[in-house]
Amino acid sequence: MGFSLMRNQKFMPTIKHLLIISIAINAGLLLKLLHHEHEWAGLPGPDTNPKNEVRLVKDVLHKAKPATDQYINLDHGDPTMYEVYWKQMGDKTTLVLSGWQSISYFSDTKNHCWFLEPGFANAVTRLHNLVGNAQTRNYHIVVGTGSTQLFQAALYALSPSNAPEPMSIVSAAPFYSSYPLIIDCLKSGLYKWKGDASKFNKDDPYIELVTSPNNPDGSIRQAVVNGSGGILVHDLAYYWPQYTPISFQANHDIMLFTVSKCTGHAGIRIGWALVKDKEVAKKMTKFIEISSIGVSKDSQHRAAKILDVIADTYEHTEKFDKSTLFFHYVYNEMAKRWRQLRSAVSKGQTFNLLDFPVEKCNFSGQRFGTQPAFAWLKCEKSIDNCEKFLKKHKILTRSGTNFGSSEKYVRISLISHKEEYDEFIRRLSLLSSMNSPHE
Amino acid sequence: MGFSLMRNQKFMPTIKHLLIISIAINAGLLLKLLHHEHEWAGLPGPDTNPKNEVRLVKDVLHKAKPATDQYINLDHGDPTMYEVYWKQMGDKTTLVLSGWQSISYFSDTKNHCWFLEPGFANAVTRLHNLVGNAQTRNYHIVVGTGSTQLFQAALYALSPSNAPEPMSIVSAAPFYSSYPLIIDCLKSGLYKWKGDASKFNKDDPYIELVTSPNNPDGSIRQAVVNGSGGILVHDLAYYWPQYTPISFQANHDIMLFTVSKCTGHAGIRIGWALVKDKEVAKKMTKFIEISSIGVSKDSQHRAAKILDVIADTYEHTEKFDKSTLFFHYVYNEMAKRWRQLRSAVSKGQTFNLLDFPVEKCNFSGQRFGTQPAFAWLKCEKSIDNCEKFLKKHKILTRSGTNFGSSEKYVRISLISHKEEYDEFIRRLSLLSSMNSPHE
Repeated sequence: MGFSLMRNQKFMPTIKHLLIISIAINAGLLLKLLHHEHEWAGLPGPDTNPKNEVRLVKDVLHKAKPATDQYINLDHGDPTMYEVYWKQMGDKTTLVLSGWQSISYFSDTKNHCWFLEPGFANAVTRLHNLVGNAQTRNYHIVVGTGSTQLFQAALYALSPSNAPEPMSIVSAAPFYSSYPLIIDCLKSGLYKWKGDASKFNKDDPYIELVTSPNNPDGSIRQAVVNGSGGILVHDLAYYWPQYTPISFQANHDIMLFTVSKCTGHAGIRIGWALVKDKEVAKKMTKFIEISSIGVSKDSQHRAAKILDVIADTYEHTEKFDKSTLFFHYVYNEMAKRWRQLRSAVSKGQTFNLLDFPVEKCNFSGQRFGTQPAFAWLKCEKSIDNCEKFLKKHKILTRSGTNFGSSEKYVRISLISHKEEYDEFIRRLSLLSSMNSPHE
Repeated sequence: MGFSLMRNQKFMPTIKHLLIISIAINAGLLLKLLHHEHEWAGLPGPDTNPKNEVRLVKDVLHKAKPATDQYINLDHGDPTMYEVYWKQMGDKTTLVLSGWQSISYFSDTKNHCWFLEPGFANAVTRLHNLVGNAQTRNYHIVVGTGSTQLFQAALYALSPSNAPEPMSIVSAAPFYSSYPLIIDCLKSGLYKWKGDASKFNKDDPYIELVTSPNNPDGSIRQAVVNGSGGILVHDLAYYWPQYTPISFQANHDIMLFTVSKCTGHAGIRIGWALVKDKEVAKKMTKFIEISSIGVSKDSQHRAAKILDVIADTYEHTEKFDKSTLFFHYVYNEMAKRWRQLRSAVSKGQTFNLLDFPVEKCNFSGQRFGTQPAFAWLKCEKSIDNCEKFLKKHKILTRSGTNFGSSEKYVRISLISHKEEYDEFIRRLSLLSSMNSPHE
């Protein structure tokens, strides 16, 4: 059935012509609709203001594998490993914030922690209840600009304001390298860093920082001083099932957590404290009020969204692919990285790693040993300064001396981009299998 | 032309039938498309995950007028006045954040301030260039969790770490009530609050905080000590054309600004410092690194978006209604509130307000006197304790004693919701016209 429309030929539309035109219109409309659907499958399309969307394209692209002569920086614990998971989740964690949000300083005037967003508090409680790593019942939640601010808030709340001497702050070596820096930064008269808890004189009042799993070495920790005047602050940043078996529900007086090491969103700068004593929670809140007039609402909204999606992957399994179970996904990645690391180290006698006892994880039901976010690597043989040795081979790490330990040790971040990690393993394997490396 | 399809009647479609079906499909597709367009005109429609959008409906609804027997809280400078403007701007300032954003700690490893988002730095520079209130050329930008954190960063950067005595910090009374609290909070050995700058002994080294326009009294300030060992920190939170004429482009060594008082987004917790000396900027950055490992990226993205839209209302006028010029809009609102306030006070002899000299604003071209975000109200006659007097009449304010001044004065926030403000004015008018009020 031919159809042609010649110029100068008088055109009288027949029903056939109309049908064809109509079908053509249908096709056009269908194409436009498909284009719309395509947009919804991803993020807002070109009809919306492109400026409304801040996409850090550089963050989502696969990082190029570092060239052989390039430095690999594994000094910081930058959790860029997590990008792949969140990219894979597409728009499930997308957050839309309107221009008139976050005007007021106040989030919840009925809560002692008046800058705590109720949605964030709910998400925190929900996630702990799901994972079973910490009790939340009868606890007060205090939100902070990362757990770093909460740690200072705890010191402020626990140190008497009128004591003749500053309160002693201790932590068993090897301890988190930032503790001394943060504590002594302003030469506070309220508290003072006194170093390794295992060498502390028990007669004075003190605060002991118990980091478990520990940064830098991944060990599971208990208080070591056990003096009568002691107060404990538990930093549980790494007490999540991708790093260690959840063997008990923690119920310490003050427990610190951070989004950075739980979900990988370090740039959001959100941490939270679970605090038993109401007066301590109030004083911590006061510190955050004085030092930053509260905590970003936008960050709390983002954190709430992310924690809720993690819980959703377990509690609304009908909506998610099984491969998106958050802790399972990240657990597998950590397990793989630790296999690669142990295999590289076992190629020779150059390096040594701690072994971790196998325990049952009440969350996943699996039995495994801690697979920390950092490796605490020891250089053996003639290598005295491990950081210097690795730096010569273009691997940047943090020397054990920063953690109250020896320069035979370094801390190495294991949660960077895969491309960086693979190149690190390649270099470490080579060094490991060298016969007699020298500094 | 009738058309019917009877059951059991054998149907052989004719071209006519096909045409009608095709036209029906056209109509259906058109309707669906119109529905889509409708969604895009506003915010994401029902096809997207409703949880993706956090809208604080309570924030955008008009606040109910406080009942006559309800307290009105004008103690804090909560800038809820700004909600109306941003609501009116609809989705122009909407921000979409993807789940994989804000993973890394780092924003710009090439910048000394490695946690500064380049987009935020650009927006800050653009806005200052538009308004002309501060030089940005040859300045280093440091971002902070509000200007409160930056203020502490400046003290840390400017106080020598090895001096025998803590650095003296002073500010002319009446001074911002939080200065003493923040400075002495941790009993720092680096610096110490020494109170009213006008009573300070000039021989010691010191840091003078110059807040201009001043909080609480709105006065335009210069340094008062002028000692040889002095360092100045300028808090210019209110140096914006809605509050005061922009009579010169500030070029002080350290200038602090905050989104809270510029755009009204206090809950975003973002401030910035313009710093001349690179080493000072580096030390300020170090403080923020130690105290909170940087500043929320999400908040910086939001702030950048908002500052950019403000600049857009002036620089892309073709896209905006003239009534949306940000500073003009807020200037008019402040002018109206000050007219209402002065009218209420002039009804009797109970209260008194400062007068501000009229100057030309280089930004708007208008001549006007400062119209501060706070009223610094004096109670006259027999009222000795102004805060107590107003509290009895259910108006909560902050006593002059908190600002190093007398209890004859109170500071009253003028930037709350309109409904609260109107009720405040109604009550103040009544008190003002009372013949002889007593405490």
